[in-house]
Amino acid sequence: MSSVSDNQLANKSQAWSALFSEPMSDLVKRYTASVGFDKRLWAADIAGSLAHAEMLHAQGILGAEDLAAIERGMAQIRSEIEAGSFEWKLDLEDVHLNIEARLTELVGIAGKRLHTGRSRNDQVATDVRLWLRGEIDELLALLAALQSALVDVAEKNAEVILPGFTHLQVAQPVAFGHHVLAYVEMFARDAERFADARRRVNRLPLGAAALAGTSYPLDRERVAKTLGMEGVCQNSLDAVSDRDFTIEFTAAASLVMVHISRLSEELILWMSQSFGFIDIADRFCTGSSIMPQKKNPDVPELARGKTGRVVGHLMGLITLMKGQPLAYNKDNQEDKEPLFDTVDTLKDTLRIFAEMAGGITVKPEAMERAALKGYATATDLADYLVKKGLAFRDAHEIVAHAVKTAIGSGLDLSQLPLAELQKFDARIGEDVFAVLSLRGSLEARNILGGTAPAQVRAQVARHRARLA
Amino acid sequence: MSSVSDNQLANKSQAWSALFSEPMSDLVKRYTASVGFDKRLWAADIAGSLAHAEMLHAQGILGAEDLAAIERGMAQIRSEIEAGSFEWKLDLEDVHLNIEARLTELVGIAGKRLHTGRSRNDQVATDVRLWLRGEIDELLALLAALQSALVDVAEKNAEVILPGFTHLQVAQPVAFGHHVLAYVEMFARDAERFADARRRVNRLPLGAAALAGTSYPLDRERVAKTLGMEGVCQNSLDAVSDRDFTIEFTAAASLVMVHISRLSEELILWMSQSFGFIDIADRFCTGSSIMPQKKNPDVPELARGKTGRVVGHLMGLITLMKGQPLAYNKDNQEDKEPLFDTVDTLKDTLRIFAEMAGGITVKPEAMERAALKGYATATDLADYLVKKGLAFRDAHEIVAHAVKTAIGSGLDLSQLPLAELQKFDARIGEDVFAVLSLRGSLEARNILGGTAPAQVRAQVARHRARLA
Amino acid sequence: MSSVSDNQLANKSQAWSALFSEPMSDLVKRYTASVGFDKRLWAADIAGSLAHAEMLHAQGILGAEDLAAIERGMAQIRSEIEAGSFEWKLDLEDVHLNIEARLTELVGIAGKRLHTGRSRNDQVATDVRLWLRGEIDELLALLAALQSALVDVAEKNAEVILPGFTHLQVAQPVAFGHHVLAYVEMFARDAERFADARRRVNRLPLGAAALAGTSYPLDRERVAKTLGMEGVCQNSLDAVSDRDFTIEFTAAASLVMVHISRLSEELILWMSQSFGFIDIADRFCTGSSIMPQKKNPDVPELARGKTGRVVGHLMGLITLMKGQPLAYNKDNQEDKEPLFDTVDTLKDTLRIFAEMAGGITVKPEAMERAALKGYATATDLADYLVKKGLAFRDAHEIVAHAVKTAIGSGLDLSQLPLAELQKFDARIGEDVFAVLSLRGSLEARNILGGTAPAQVRAQVARHRARLA
Amino acid sequence: MSSVSDNQLANKSQAWSALFSEPMSDLVKRYTASVGFDKRLWAADIAGSLAHAEMLHAQGILGAEDLAAIERGMAQIRSEIEAGSFEWKLDLEDVHLNIEARLTELVGIAGKRLHTGRSRNDQVATDVRLWLRGEIDELLALLAALQSALVDVAEKNAEVILPGFTHLQVAQPVAFGHHVLAYVEMFARDAERFADARRRVNRLPLGAAALAGTSYPLDRERVAKTLGMEGVCQNSLDAVSDRDFTIEFTAAASLVMVHISRLSEELILWMSQSFGFIDIADRFCTGSSIMPQKKNPDVPELARGKTGRVVGHLMGLITLMKGQPLAYNKDNQEDKEPLFDTVDTLKDTLRIFAEMAGGITVKPEAMERAALKGYATATDLADYLVKKGLAFRDAHEIVAHAVKTAIGSGLDLSQLPLAELQKFDARIGEDVFAVLSLRGSLEARNILGGTAPAQVRAQVARHRARLA
Repeated sequence: MSSVSDNQLANKSQAWSALFSEPMSDLVKRYTASVGFDKRLWAADIAGSLAHAEMLHAQGILGAEDLAAIERGMAQIRSEIEAGSFEWKLDLEDVHLNIEARLTELVGIAGKRLHTGRSRNDQVATDVRLWLRGEIDELLALLAALQSALVDVAEKNAEVILPGFTHLQVAQPVAFGHHVLAYVEMFARDAERFADARRRVNRLPLGAAALAGTSYPLDRERVAKTLGMEGVCQNSLDAVSDRDFTIEFTAAASLVMVHISRLSEELILWMSQSFGFIDIADRFCTGSSIMPQKKNPDVPELARGKTGRVVGHLMGLITLMKGQPLAYNKDNQEDKEPLFDTVDTLKDTLRIFAEMAGGITVKPEAMERAALKGYATATDLADYLVKKGLAFRDAHEIVAHAVKTAIGSGLDLSQLPLAELQKFDARIGEDVFAVLSLRGSLEARNILGGTAPAQVRAQVARHRARLA
Repeated sequence: MSSVSDNQLANKSQAWSALFSEPMSDLVKRYTASVGFDKRLWAADIAGSLAHAEMLHAQGILGAEDLAAIERGMAQIRSEIEAGSFEWKLDLEDVHLNIEARLTELVGIAGKRLHTGRSRNDQVATDVRLWLRGEIDELLALLAALQSALVDVAEKNAEVILPGFTHLQVAQPVAFGHHVLAYVEMFARDAERFADARRRVNRLPLGAAALAGTSYPLDRERVAKTLGMEGVCQNSLDAVSDRDFTIEFTAAASLVMVHISRLSEELILWMSQSFGFIDIADRFCTGSSIMPQKKNPDVPELARGKTGRVVGHLMGLITLMKGQPLAYNKDNQEDKEPLFDTVDTLKDTLRIFAEMAGGITVKPEAMERAALKGYATATDLADYLVKKGLAFRDAHEIVAHAVKTAIGSGLDLSQLPLAELQKFDARIGEDVFAVLSLRGSLEARNILGGTAPAQVRAQVARHRARLA
Repeated sequence: MSSVSDNQLANKSQAWSALFSEPMSDLVKRYTASVGFDKRLWAADIAGSLAHAEMLHAQGILGAEDLAAIERGMAQIRSEIEAGSFEWKLDLEDVHLNIEARLTELVGIAGKRLHTGRSRNDQVATDVRLWLRGEIDELLALLAALQSALVDVAEKNAEVILPGFTHLQVAQPVAFGHHVLAYVEMFARDAERFADARRRVNRLPLGAAALAGTSYPLDRERVAKTLGMEGVCQNSLDAVSDRDFTIEFTAAASLVMVHISRLSEELILWMSQSFGFIDIADRFCTGSSIMPQKKNPDVPELARGKTGRVVGHLMGLITLMKGQPLAYNKDNQEDKEPLFDTVDTLKDTLRIFAEMAGGITVKPEAMERAALKGYATATDLADYLVKKGLAFRDAHEIVAHAVKTAIGSGLDLSQLPLAELQKFDARIGEDVFAVLSLRGSLEARNILGGTAPAQVRAQVARHRARLA
Repeated sequence: MSSVSDNQLANKSQAWSALFSEPMSDLVKRYTASVGFDKRLWAADIAGSLAHAEMLHAQGILGAEDLAAIERGMAQIRSEIEAGSFEWKLDLEDVHLNIEARLTELVGIAGKRLHTGRSRNDQVATDVRLWLRGEIDELLALLAALQSALVDVAEKNAEVILPGFTHLQVAQPVAFGHHVLAYVEMFARDAERFADARRRVNRLPLGAAALAGTSYPLDRERVAKTLGMEGVCQNSLDAVSDRDFTIEFTAAASLVMVHISRLSEELILWMSQSFGFIDIADRFCTGSSIMPQKKNPDVPELARGKTGRVVGHLMGLITLMKGQPLAYNKDNQEDKEPLFDTVDTLKDTLRIFAEMAGGITVKPEAMERAALKGYATATDLADYLVKKGLAFRDAHEIVAHAVKTAIGSGLDLSQLPLAELQKFDARIGEDVFAVLSLRGSLEARNILGGTAPAQVRAQVARHRARLA
């Protein structure tokens, strides 16, 4: 029974094992096979197998020749996959059996010995964790790149005046650079969350076997060390059934996309003709098949739309896990596609946004003109009155009257004559006009976290140091 | 300017149109292109174009030769796509431009005239509606097939006694056939919902052009009639921006999957050794790579998991549309992949469940044995006492005492001696034992919608007539 | 055992029934009780009980005196609840036991006989359906009122020119009335969906009893008729476990909120100073505690936010039902709060939007000024060239060149001299200027569903007839 | 203008401020007011105000008398709220204005000075963060208590044999204590996530004012220190618009509920008569209004249902934030109810589960009997053969044949005679029977994370140390 051709894996298309009296229906085979999408785990699968084999040998479970054969076979398989010549078979269900079957074909009985003391349940959990750890590292780099690109924009625009909005109504003048740095804060928090999630991803399930551990004297700590993992899953049932890390990761990813959606919303608004605050380089835009004049901000629109995709994956994964009894159930196979697509979407989106940041042309005059429309310095007038002795609540009410009058006259507060202003409060003096200018207002907010250009530059320096 | 090579579509990779000063970035091209997934709309796209061209001709906007050329070109394109020889180009973004560019290549200027009075905005909305209408029709057939398969199971098991559960505690005996028919009701409602949604899908956006209608004298009613649509979208802005129908469809699809998840949960429970109520044919099961004795109900498990996938798509689509201003925004391109995957998932799942229904082996003895474990006829005893003159609430309390005693003795109610039963109420007579049997209980519930075998058979007949 | 004080309901706080050896923990009582929220079902509960009692009597199961007593007791309870003097008890868990216990207190043994042939499982399902049917009817009226209010706005603004946007870029001029009517289409579809859902809500579960039907000869059709229901649930297991209608209703409600969110987004944009297209009456706005000049469009913002609330309820309900085995499980109690809150949110929101529609001040000059910013008539120029003999694709490219030139000169297309325009195509004549005006463009789209004022007025008439 | 009665807050019901020409509609007032739910933030609101006032004084912005008056007034308000005598007014919108207005009533102009240099935008963000920090601390304690309760159960059941399931099919014997510890791992991860989230919650927005910072020389680090916060939000726009922490917290809470749903599913299964593995104490169960024999596991069922509630809140919060432009929008007010309900649900659920853990009666015989049904030691036979020299894959196939034979004879593997076993492989000896026993199998999995009782006890010790 030791020939390759009649091993358990070779006749899967006839019947799963001796226990089964009929082969799997073709429809079922297609419905349940995962190799179409899980083959992307191949590198992690091989890495995990090699670490497992090395440990089996160290523990005296696997002979030196078998280990050498396995290593040789895996090197060959790696070359085949990289060269695109590896034949993935639907009949072999998944990445694990495809690689194992090929290994046995290449090196014979040593290949059959590799699966000692493990199961596909702990193997796939290990593969996904190894793979995701690598992807998180890439995402951290992409988040850093995007932050850097935004910091560059912020630095260039530390003095540019933008109307700050609340409720999309003009509120107070802010520096455009300050506004951009708000997004840097968001993406910095995203990176924190990914780093936190990474610690929980980077733990080793291998050794849990099917669900209960194994009777072989495995050294799980050794495998963890070989694979660069920070610890070992401490309970075998949990190890094979835990998918928390995919949900935690996807929740963090959803927040990234929420931030992207907010930034996109603003880019789209700002590029709309009525705002006209920015232009986005042609290479990030498309036209219309019918309207010759159109130049559309497709990238931020599509990114805003892709928020739904990632959030949908999060909801899908939670629904998947809700109410599942322990330990492994086949439902869990459905964790991969949403996870993979989440990673792909994030990587593409972050990369394109980092690139696009440099393609944004800022129009300072349009921004400043818009800031003049909404009595943006009314709060400054109230604060001025407080410094003259009024309680803030009383000052607020006085300024409301002044604004009402100014609206009636079609003037900005700064355009009202002093005499007119003094009707609202006699304490108002000539020095009020410094306070009522946009730039005066901006400079005045010179407090940690505030919008004064000095603060923006300080934050730029802090971010540069942090991202270095 | 009439040569094919310098038309607007041919140089998309250099620049979108004359308006653009630089070509689209490759990263952006990949990010924004949809041809990779929307090419599956090709048949609907061609059908829509032909109906549009026919009407343009009828309205005197397109010459007879141009129409003939377009029809000839489209026939050619159809052959190429069916033969797999059509070359889909990423540079041409989507299914519409790919087909239109090829048409112009094949038939020259007539191809360029096809896009008169329409835009990709109304074109894609039309394509998706046509395509989805066809898929709904297939789903209705699959839902009917699944219902029929379940009705067959119900008929065969109209007399088989199953412990009916509430709170997963044995409640009252029910016919297994009755239980199966509960799912027929669910899938029948699903079909109702799809039919309702179909009416809202089957309306024509074409003629809305980019967003405002067109200045060409199109006959939209004619196009609707040609395409078999029930009406015309009455507002152009709504026509191009409406994606309600994808959400409504996906919500109905989510309910199908919720039903599938409930049925799956029960199949999995019933096949678990502790229940042991059914067996599922080997061809729908898989084994384990480590545990040689395992036979796992993979299909229902995976289907239960796929509920998350479809629900995730629903949430993704709603998130996508939330807060979008009119009219078309690029976000909307993200509607297709979740919609396509929802349809694919449903079709595969319904097909496999209809097939699997015939592969279920029922174990009546195990079911009946389990029904004897939980005092399933206690309600019958209470009802018996009511018929002897007690108020239901008092009878309920008396039976609770009797059950407590029976539990203490390790006996079923039907095993308690008459004398013992009479201690709880003197009105209890010998005739009580007919009431306390499982079959007696079952037969007694002979009311519309109840579990008596006669009712089950009546329902089977009703469903057969309905599904015929 | 017939005294009221020692009946099954009176000593729930000591022990659930004779079967239980200890009373329910207080923490559990609070955790599982539903009376805090389900008491709002009281009117439906009483209506259902009365219909049940009337039928029990008609079937000879309940004596005439008992029926009279029950009717008398229920009238009393109704008065007490309406007067606010009814004492709701947490110990009695839910609305059903509270009313039943009070009934027994008031009328003695007749009250205990009411629960014959039914269970709380079918009772609560009936109550929720009756209640929701009434709420749907109110929502249909509110949707009609909102549509009417919007039709009024549309009629007044049939000639007002708004820049129609795609991708939030100026696309083509549209009538503001046309734009508003797009929302009427959406809310009309919402009403269709509610009406469809109502048919599935309006079916009677009563008679399913706990899960299996009952041994009493009930006449379920009679009860359905008494309650105005369209049919009877045909399977008892399905009748008590089905919550499809809550999910279907909440999905339809989510679409209403998606529409509200889109309208809100636009109102917020339009009221932003950079657009300045509308003003919203002060009574729908709030100010700022710090910025005296602020007037914020709180209502549309909050409504946009409430979209999340309703969508969250939809997700919650689906998650709730996923994977539940038949028949009733306690999980289902969690269906009520999201359903109630969805109804409340919709009713408040629709009412306030109908009222707010009349408080919108339109600023036609600002809209028209904005429409002039984005070469909104470029498509008209292309169409003009097609009518002169060009293929659309070639015309599109020519106009793109013209727009590029115009942008370079800082002019609108209509401001370019004829000679300049003729450089792009010699066929351009003096008549082009009629085509290039906003109003000319608007009037030209005189096609079913298009934006020409004549079409808008036709649609207004259609909607008025429909809503009458 | 300094009298209390005509201050800005006192006439909110007439008009928001001098700027407004009409009072807020009553419908709008009810729609937009938040005091009905945000009053629960009162303690955080007062704490934040006191820290702000103390700092204003330290910075020379507020006089000593004003500070004293504010502190006196706040002490009074605290007493009134705790005594239930504080009058919350809908007209005053929210918790902030209610407290501030009362303060001004009590201490006059000092109260009006408190709002210097802050806005409700940064105030509410601070309140929610302070409040949530406290709730997280309570949740961490509740998670620890639940873990401890489960560790107690695990310790008592370290030797009890349970059939370990995969795919709900009997897989391998596991210790019941081992199974319970899987949940301890999950709740331990939940605690890690809450601790991570707490760091991001515990940052100070105050000082961001409305959106741009303030012109007063505030010392934000001082306020942070007073309030025990770990840092200061570094960007004012981000500070007032960031709701990441509510989403991150709710995502972590959703995972807690997913774990609760899995545990609940198992408790329900185990208590079902067909399993019969456990009993849950009467005080955590309820009966049926119709079936006198019923005792239902209401608590786990309801908890499983409440998963939907929390997941719904997560979805709602994400939908809420998607696509919002900076900075504060009224939409954000909708963050509170889902957050509050999430916290309440979690606290109730964790508390009741910790209590219920002690009310679970384990039935070891039923568990062991069930473990004997599914050839749970087949893997042990394969491992035995590997130790005799076979490759695992070949051993797997041999054991499948043996299991097939055993099923045919209706025997367990351990019941097959040695001679029979040797037909499958001659290397099988008398020592095989030790391997084929449930206890032998259990003991053999003596590896870190495995199910051997020695490992379970080691984990119990580790958890006790960790939780101490």
